[in-house]
Amino acid sequence: MKLVIYLAGQIHDNWRGELMQQAQERNYSFEFVAPQTDHDRSDDIGEVILGKQPSNLYRDDAASAVNNLRTQVLMAKSDVVVAVFGEKYRQWNTAMDVSTALTLNKPVIIVRPEKLIHPLKELSNKANVTVENIEQALEVLGYIFE
Amino acid sequence: MKLVIYLAGQIHDNWRGELMQQAQERNYSFEFVAPQTDHDRSDDIGEVILGKQPSNLYRDDAASAVNNLRTQVLMAKSDVVVAVFGEKYRQWNTAMDVSTALTLNKPVIIVRPEKLIHPLKELSNKANVTVENIEQALEVLGYIFE
Amino acid sequence: MKLVIYLAGQIHDNWRGELMQQAQERNYSFEFVAPQTDHDRSDDIGEVILGKQPSNLYRDDAASAVNNLRTQVLMAKSDVVVAVFGEKYRQWNTAMDVSTALTLNKPVIIVRPEKLIHPLKELSNKANVTVENIEQALEVLGYIFE
Amino acid sequence: MKLVIYLAGQIHDNWRGELMQQAQERNYSFEFVAPQTDHDRSDDIGEVILGKQPSNLYRDDAASAVNNLRTQVLMAKSDVVVAVFGEKYRQWNTAMDVSTALTLNKPVIIVRPEKLIHPLKELSNKANVTVENIEQALEVLGYIFE
Amino acid sequence: MKLVIYLAGQIHDNWRGELMQQAQERNYSFEFVAPQTDHDRSDDIGEVILGKQPSNLYRDDAASAVNNLRTQVLMAKSDVVVAVFGEKYRQWNTAMDVSTALTLNKPVIIVRPEKLIHPLKELSNKANVTVENIEQALEVLGYIFE
Amino acid sequence: MKLVIYLAGQIHDNWRGELMQQAQERNYSFEFVAPQTDHDRSDDIGEVILGKQPSNLYRDDAASAVNNLRTQVLMAKSDVVVAVFGEKYRQWNTAMDVSTALTLNKPVIIVRPEKLIHPLKELSNKANVTVENIEQALEVLGYIFE
Amino acid sequence: MKLVIYLAGQIHDNWRGELMQQAQERNYSFEFVAPQTDHDRSDDIGEVILGKQPSNLYRDDAASAVNNLRTQVLMAKSDVVVAVFGEKYRQWNTAMDVSTALTLNKPVIIVRPEKLIHPLKELSNKANVTVENIEQALEVLGYIFE
Amino acid sequence: MKLVIYLAGQIHDNWRGELMQQAQERNYSFEFVAPQTDHDRSDDIGEVILGKQPSNLYRDDAASAVNNLRTQVLMAKSDVVVAVFGEKYRQWNTAMDVSTALTLNKPVIIVRPEKLIHPLKELSNKANVTVENIEQALEVLGYIFE
Repeated sequence: MKLVIYLAGQIHDNWRGELMQQAQERNYSFEFVAPQTDHDRSDDIGEVILGKQPSNLYRDDAASAVNNLRTQVLMAKSDVVVAVFGEKYRQWNTAMDVSTALTLNKPVIIVRPEKLIHPLKELSNKANVTVENIEQALEVLGYIFE
Repeated sequence: MKLVIYLAGQIHDNWRGELMQQAQERNYSFEFVAPQTDHDRSDDIGEVILGKQPSNLYRDDAASAVNNLRTQVLMAKSDVVVAVFGEKYRQWNTAMDVSTALTLNKPVIIVRPEKLIHPLKELSNKANVTVENIEQALEVLGYIFE
Repeated sequence: MKLVIYLAGQIHDNWRGELMQQAQERNYSFEFVAPQTDHDRSDDIGEVILGKQPSNLYRDDAASAVNNLRTQVLMAKSDVVVAVFGEKYRQWNTAMDVSTALTLNKPVIIVRPEKLIHPLKELSNKANVTVENIEQALEVLGYIFE
Repeated sequence: MKLVIYLAGQIHDNWRGELMQQAQERNYSFEFVAPQTDHDRSDDIGEVILGKQPSNLYRDDAASAVNNLRTQVLMAKSDVVVAVFGEKYRQWNTAMDVSTALTLNKPVIIVRPEKLIHPLKELSNKANVTVENIEQALEVLGYIFE
Repeated sequence: MKLVIYLAGQIHDNWRGELMQQAQERNYSFEFVAPQTDHDRSDDIGEVILGKQPSNLYRDDAASAVNNLRTQVLMAKSDVVVAVFGEKYRQWNTAMDVSTALTLNKPVIIVRPEKLIHPLKELSNKANVTVENIEQALEVLGYIFE
Repeated sequence: MKLVIYLAGQIHDNWRGELMQQAQERNYSFEFVAPQTDHDRSDDIGEVILGKQPSNLYRDDAASAVNNLRTQVLMAKSDVVVAVFGEKYRQWNTAMDVSTALTLNKPVIIVRPEKLIHPLKELSNKANVTVENIEQALEVLGYIFE
Repeated sequence: MKLVIYLAGQIHDNWRGELMQQAQERNYSFEFVAPQTDHDRSDDIGEVILGKQPSNLYRDDAASAVNNLRTQVLMAKSDVVVAVFGEKYRQWNTAMDVSTALTLNKPVIIVRPEKLIHPLKELSNKANVTVENIEQALEVLGYIFE
Repeated sequence: MKLVIYLAGQIHDNWRGELMQQAQERNYSFEFVAPQTDHDRSDDIGEVILGKQPSNLYRDDAASAVNNLRTQVLMAKSDVVVAVFGEKYRQWNTAMDVSTALTLNKPVIIVRPEKLIHPLKELSNKANVTVENIEQALEVLGYIFE
């Protein structure tokens, strides 16, 4: 049995790479998928495909249409979602991914620093497990196959 | 035919009161429901019911459990969700409500200031309609019955 | 028991008014809902609410967002969909409404002239009943309560 | 991870062949499925299987029954739907496929020429992404695996 | 709380009338709905609406299309299905109604004579309760409100 | 807006009566439904309707068929489930009701004494809120309408 | 792409064997599954596993429980259902399988002799395609991969 | 075709090992998954990952969150659930697993000693098949592939 893990969340440090490397070291049988993590590419993709848009509003809407399609396809294939929240940025799309996954009956592990306990409390309460670092998230994932 | 509208979102000004008053002036046939808008009550409700919790983490989790139950009941009764985002606070629970509603096939109108175009772009792209003020949201609601 | 009937389809003659009048004459207990039938209002509604858009593409997208929200709300309330196709115009949104209703497990009656048998064959095959005029559609509706 | 792409839409030029060839050149890991693209075969299939029907109405209904079964099986296997609209013909079955896919929570990319912006506006607004040519559609598909 | 009961099944004696009268005598708060019980009307309805069909096959298909629409609407409104099987006739549409209801998560009470135990065993095993006469079915219904 | 509350759980004391009385005193707008609380009637109902069964196994199966039908109908009408666990008896049907409700996306409040924390931990973790007495459960219900 | 075909229906001649052999000759890529076709084994299986039951009623119920579990597992894996009705026997479990499949959104091909047109009319109208022999059913299946 | 079987239930003897060994001896093509069967590990896992919790209540909640995530992932992959109840312990999580599986339309085989007939009667009535030992459960599983 192979599980697909969707790695939602912030793209400001290389947490996905670290998590994937640790998973490999432990010989875990997971396939990882994720949103576009190249921030510029993610912001540009709408105009790359559709051409110059009339303003930032339309530029952002065109990009997010393509990004949302990507997320929808990959999340449909996923068995678990790991979502990492950081202290910077709004990260509403991460909250969106968590809530979509939960409503679709996919289990979610939230990773967030202690400072974010209060603003994330409703999402944490709905998620299956909330932890503070990716090692802990990986331990939860590994526990599935024990 | 009577529609129930869930008013998700920020609780830092009286936008719900204004929207409801304007709806009444226009004789719209809506019933409005909303999350707890008394911020202190919302934060305290877990300990009010369950007693003193061992730390802020558990206090927040207890409160959000009760708030999430409330939201789940009222959103299940709703036909449309109006979600207002403001510039202050993280508002991840608002993003959660929007995404839950969309996944449950309930239409969503997002109200957000121009400054939030970029961080809200994925949610806006998924929502049915995004506007900048509650008068516009009300016009969309009114259009249903024209 | 009261049933809600969604009247999808072309807006180039007053078939909805005729159908509703005949239903009233027969004392049928239906509540009828429909898309916006004022064609100009339907095309303008996006700019009326959101202001002038940068081109016809965005103007059309803004209008259809509001029209789609309306349809989604009213169809969710409906028990049966009657869809009338005429010989003019593309009417892809009518085909969209029929297919959405069928996928949501709502019964559909298609009304179409003989000339449209061939291009509508896949939709007709999926719909519950296909007839040629609104009197026939009304007879089907009336049969539910016999 | 392998994705299945359903290629809905017009059968008046070889757009499917071009798209598949370009996908192969880019080494994309997709499996493509499609409706019957031999137009005569598609129209005849009912009588081929069931024998001569009493009139065109029944001939068309018999053919569309088999075509709809095919579409239902293949779309159930698909992860993304690409739908191409052309300027000729009614293409109501293409609109039907798009709407079915969206209601089943499958992402849809619409390809349509500029002239069809207005009649396709409601479908475009519901679809994930709308583009003007198959190269753009392919770029969207490729972006999923970046 | 008012419950709607769909009375599926054979139309060869007046079991529906008896059941409804007994429910009235016991002051039960049920609304009863049923398929067309006038057998000729049920067989004719397709041609009554669509006109003379080319053969019995098409005549039967036209009639069953209208009958199936009726059943779909009324069953969607129902809380419980009571299905009575008799010793005459094939009654495959009754089996169809039972199975549809069960798959839609609606509880089903089957009423059948002892002689039909063996041929109905798979349906009985899936149904909630199987009894031998309508008095027993009514007792089950009444028990809901005790 | 009126909510229906299903009162699942033990029938060894009059907690339902107390909860309903307190709800009335607070003028809460709830309609309460519940399983059969007359224990003998609940155990006998199968044989009352179907006659003497060949052994206790069949007697119990006949009774639980009728009880399960009742629960299925009433839970389908409910907006919230309150489930009370006591220290006596196995109460597996209560656990079944809680889990069914949660899987059907209905919110659940569990009431259990401190001694049952450990054996109920998986159910509590899935439920929306867990409290220790019915006053607390009622406060959660009342909070929905604040 | 490999499809799984569930072969529902009568077990009084070797139609499944013929269909599978013809599929093999045509090199079709299908995996076929079916109910237990050994009639005695199907009737005995309950008592084989659970031991002697107190009467035929309980013997039949025990057997159908195991048969229904088998059907539920295999149908969940299937992409298309082919159901053959013959002139003998009640075959209510075949009607049950067809209706379950249709409600679960699985396409169904019914095979029935001309004499059964009338009693099967409601099921035929709901099924995707109705034919008169297994060669025709196989042609429909083969058409999926053309 | 390979089936995944989830082995829910008590962990007080090695029934899973025996069942798996017998399945292997019969060359059955099943993949078995199960909850954590190391009781201490199951109780400790929350604190192992999240650190010392303030009391047993929070310790149990943390552990059950991780255990529930595991169950949710593995049950989603399963085709059949076998649930063994023993005479010791409350086993409410086993009842929870059974009810979740049934509500998700997954077939369930319950294994329980004769003494538990009465307290398990509602669950048994909902489950597909109830037997008394694992050999019988294995025979039911084997019957799927006959």
